[in-house]
Amino acid sequence: MLKVAIAGLGTVGCGVIAMVQGNGPLSRAVTITGVTARTKDRARPVDVSAYRWFDDPVALAADAETDVFVELMGGSEGTAKDTVEAALKAGKCVVTANKALLADHGEALAALAAAHGGELRYEAAIAGGIPVVKALREGLAANQIDAVCGVLNGTCNYILTEMSNTGRAFSDVLAEAQSLGYAEADPTLDVSGADAGHKLSLLGALAFSGKPDFGSMLLEGITGIEPIDLETAAFLGFRIKLLAKAMRDGDAVVQSVRPTLLKADHPIARIDGPLNAVVIDAEPVGRISLVGRGAGAGPTASAVAGDLMDLSHGDQRPVFAGPGSGGVMSAGVAGTQVGRFYLRLRVADQPGRIAAVTEALAKHGVSIESFLQKPPEDATRVPIALTTQPVAEPSLRAAIADLQSGSIVTEPPLLMPIEL
Amino acid sequence: MLKVAIAGLGTVGCGVIAMVQGNGPLSRAVTITGVTARTKDRARPVDVSAYRWFDDPVALAADAETDVFVELMGGSEGTAKDTVEAALKAGKCVVTANKALLADHGEALAALAAAHGGELRYEAAIAGGIPVVKALREGLAANQIDAVCGVLNGTCNYILTEMSNTGRAFSDVLAEAQSLGYAEADPTLDVSGADAGHKLSLLGALAFSGKPDFGSMLLEGITGIEPIDLETAAFLGFRIKLLAKAMRDGDAVVQSVRPTLLKADHPIARIDGPLNAVVIDAEPVGRISLVGRGAGAGPTASAVAGDLMDLSHGDQRPVFAGPGSGGVMSAGVAGTQVGRFYLRLRVADQPGRIAAVTEALAKHGVSIESFLQKPPEDATRVPIALTTQPVAEPSLRAAIADLQSGSIVTEPPLLMPIEL
Repeated sequence: MLKVAIAGLGTVGCGVIAMVQGNGPLSRAVTITGVTARTKDRARPVDVSAYRWFDDPVALAADAETDVFVELMGGSEGTAKDTVEAALKAGKCVVTANKALLADHGEALAALAAAHGGELRYEAAIAGGIPVVKALREGLAANQIDAVCGVLNGTCNYILTEMSNTGRAFSDVLAEAQSLGYAEADPTLDVSGADAGHKLSLLGALAFSGKPDFGSMLLEGITGIEPIDLETAAFLGFRIKLLAKAMRDGDAVVQSVRPTLLKADHPIARIDGPLNAVVIDAEPVGRISLVGRGAGAGPTASAVAGDLMDLSHGDQRPVFAGPGSGGVMSAGVAGTQVGRFYLRLRVADQPGRIAAVTEALAKHGVSIESFLQKPPEDATRVPIALTTQPVAEPSLRAAIADLQSGSIVTEPPLLMPIEL
Repeated sequence: MLKVAIAGLGTVGCGVIAMVQGNGPLSRAVTITGVTARTKDRARPVDVSAYRWFDDPVALAADAETDVFVELMGGSEGTAKDTVEAALKAGKCVVTANKALLADHGEALAALAAAHGGELRYEAAIAGGIPVVKALREGLAANQIDAVCGVLNGTCNYILTEMSNTGRAFSDVLAEAQSLGYAEADPTLDVSGADAGHKLSLLGALAFSGKPDFGSMLLEGITGIEPIDLETAAFLGFRIKLLAKAMRDGDAVVQSVRPTLLKADHPIARIDGPLNAVVIDAEPVGRISLVGRGAGAGPTASAVAGDLMDLSHGDQRPVFAGPGSGGVMSAGVAGTQVGRFYLRLRVADQPGRIAAVTEALAKHGVSIESFLQKPPEDATRVPIALTTQPVAEPSLRAAIADLQSGSIVTEPPLLMPIEL
C-alpha cells in the first residue's frame, strides 16, 4: 500500500479521499497517513476524523510515515511551494494539481525531485481528467511533436460559448458566470489567459523544452472580444476559442495563448462550455485529439488518482522530459510567424474610409481574404472586419500602427490569428 | 538498451525500424537483435541487412539475445500464435498489433505472460496511434467505467462517410475503396464488423471483464445500409457510424458492434474517413474522447514504439486488468436492452400499409418518435423509415417478426440502434 498524505480538503481533496474510502482500485492501492487543510472543523462530504490531522502542512509534507505528498492547496508561492519543496527534499513523491506552482517553479522542483530520488507528478494540473501528460510523456514518447494546442480554460470557454450562442456582451456573460460559480470573484487569472498559459507551459515542457517557460509566452485574454466578432466569425465559417498553443518553429518553441478563429471543422471548434481539449500534431502518429471535462472534483480527482496508481506500480519517468527529449529547445518569439489573421476595426463615418484601410494594408504587403463593413453604429464608429491571406504578423502590425497613427481608426483594433 | 526482435517487415515493421534508426528517443532506448519476414530479399524502405536474419520466426521469438519480441505478422493462428507463445514461454516480453490473435487467445496468452514473468503489450492493436490502452489501463486506472464505445474500423468509416457525402451505394463505394487500397480484396473481416469486434474485445477486457470475450458479442456489419438510410438519418439529425460498444448492464458487460444512428452533436458523429475514435464514460472522470488515425504505418509504429518505451522504463502492468479491476464481470446478452431504434422497411404499394405497420408496432408497445414514408420505388417497394421512443429491443423485434409474417413487408427490414 502506498502511504499518502493529502494537503487541501476542498472538493478535489475530498474527491480523492472518497475514492480511497470506496471499493475501487484506489482503495486497494493507497492508505492515507495524514491530512491538513486551512480549517480543521467544517462540514465535508467525507469523514476525515480517522486520519492524523496536521496543523502544519510542512510537517505533514516531511512526515516519516508518508511516501507520497498530495498537494491540493493551490497558489504558486507560500505554503504550496514550501510543502512541495519539503516533501521532495525528504525524498518523497509529490502529486499536485497546481499549475501556477509548476509554471513558475517547475524547473527547480523537477531538479529537487531528481536530486532526492522522488517523483513529481501533475496529471491533474493541465486539463482535468484528460490523461494528457500520460499521452505525451508515455504514449507518444517515441514521437517528434510538431505542435500541441488546446482549449485549457473552462471559464473562458464557457463565456465564449455563451456569447456565441446568445449574442450577449462579455461583461454580461462574465457576471452571470460569476453568479453561477463558473467564474471567480476576481476573474483575472482566467480571462487574461494566464491560467491557460500556466497549463500550456507544462504541455510545452513535455512536448519540447524540458522545462516550463511561462515567461516567454505571448498571452492575450478574451476581454476585448465583442458580439460582433463572434457573429462575423460565424458568418465566415469560424468559431472563436481561447487557444493555447506550443509549436515548433525551426529550432525554437513558440508558445502563445490567444483568442483564435478556428475553422468550423477543426477538432477544437466545437469544444463548448466547460470542456477542455488538447490536440497533438506529431510524427509519425499524426494528429491525436483528447477531449474531456477540464475541471471539477471528479475529473481532477481521477487524474490525481491515476498518478497515485502509477506510483503504486513503481513507474518512474523524468518530470518534464517527453517526446523527442534529448534536446532541449530554446524559446522563440511568439507573434512573429506567418499566418492568417482576423482584424476588426472601428473607423470614422467619412468618405474614403475603406480605401484608407485597404491601402494601409496593401502598403505592408497584406492581402485581404474577406472584407465586411457593417452599418455605422454611430458617426464615429463604423465596424470593419477582415481576414487576411498568410502574412508575417509583424507586417500586419505595422499596417495597423500606420492606421492608428492616422485619424480614420477611432478605437484600438482587435487582432486574432486564424487556424484552418 | 532494450534488445528487440521484429517479426514482420511490412509498413509497420519498417516504420518501427525507421524510428530505431532515426535520432529520436526510440534510437536511444532500443537495439534490434534480429528480424524475420516471409521474404528475405525484397525492396524495403529501411535497410535491414545489418540485423541477424531468421528464416524461422519461432527461433527468433525464443532467441537468447532478445528481451522483447515484436509480432507484426498478423493472423489469429499459425505463425503469429506460435511465435508469441514461444516468446512468452521463454519469459520474454511481447509487443503486438494483432487484434485477431488477442481476441481469440488473449486470455491464454495473458496467463502465459503471467506464468513466465513477461509482459504482453498491444497498444497498436486498438485504434492505431491513439493511446487508448494507456488511457484505460493507467490514466483512468482508478475509475469505474460505465461504457466504452468507438469507431474502430477505418474501412467501414470511410465507406459510410463516402456513402453519406455522395449518395452512392455500398457496393459502388466498396469497389472504389478496394481500388484505392482502403479495403482488402476480401473485405469480409472489415465490413462484417469482425475487425471492430476484435478491437472491442480488448477494450471490454480492459474496462470490464479482465479477458477478451469475442464470442459473446453481437456483430452486425454495414452491408445492409443503403443511401436511403443515410439520407433519412441526416434528415432527422443523425449520422450513421459502425459503433463498437461495451457497456455495463447491471452486473454484466454487454458488447456489440452495430451500425448506429448518432445524434449529430455526439462526439463520434463527425469522426469521418479513416479516423478512429474512442469515447469512455467513467466515474468520477466523466466522458473522455480520444481521436486519431486508426491505421497506417505511422500511427501503428507510434503505438508499438510507445509500448517499447514503456518496457524500456520497466513499467509493469497486468495484461488486461484495467479500471475497476478486482471483480471480473460476466457476459450479458446484447440486443436485449432498452433503447431508441431506427427501422427501415419496404412495404407493398397497397391501401392500409401505414396502418398495418403502426398497428403491429402498437401491439407490442412500441411508440413511434418519427415516421417517414417516401414515394414508391415500384409497385412492391414503398420505403418507410421510422424511429422509436425507448423500447426493449425484443419487443421491437417481435413487432418486426409479426410484420414479416404478413404480406405487407416485401423485403428484410433494417434495424439500427440510436445513440443520443
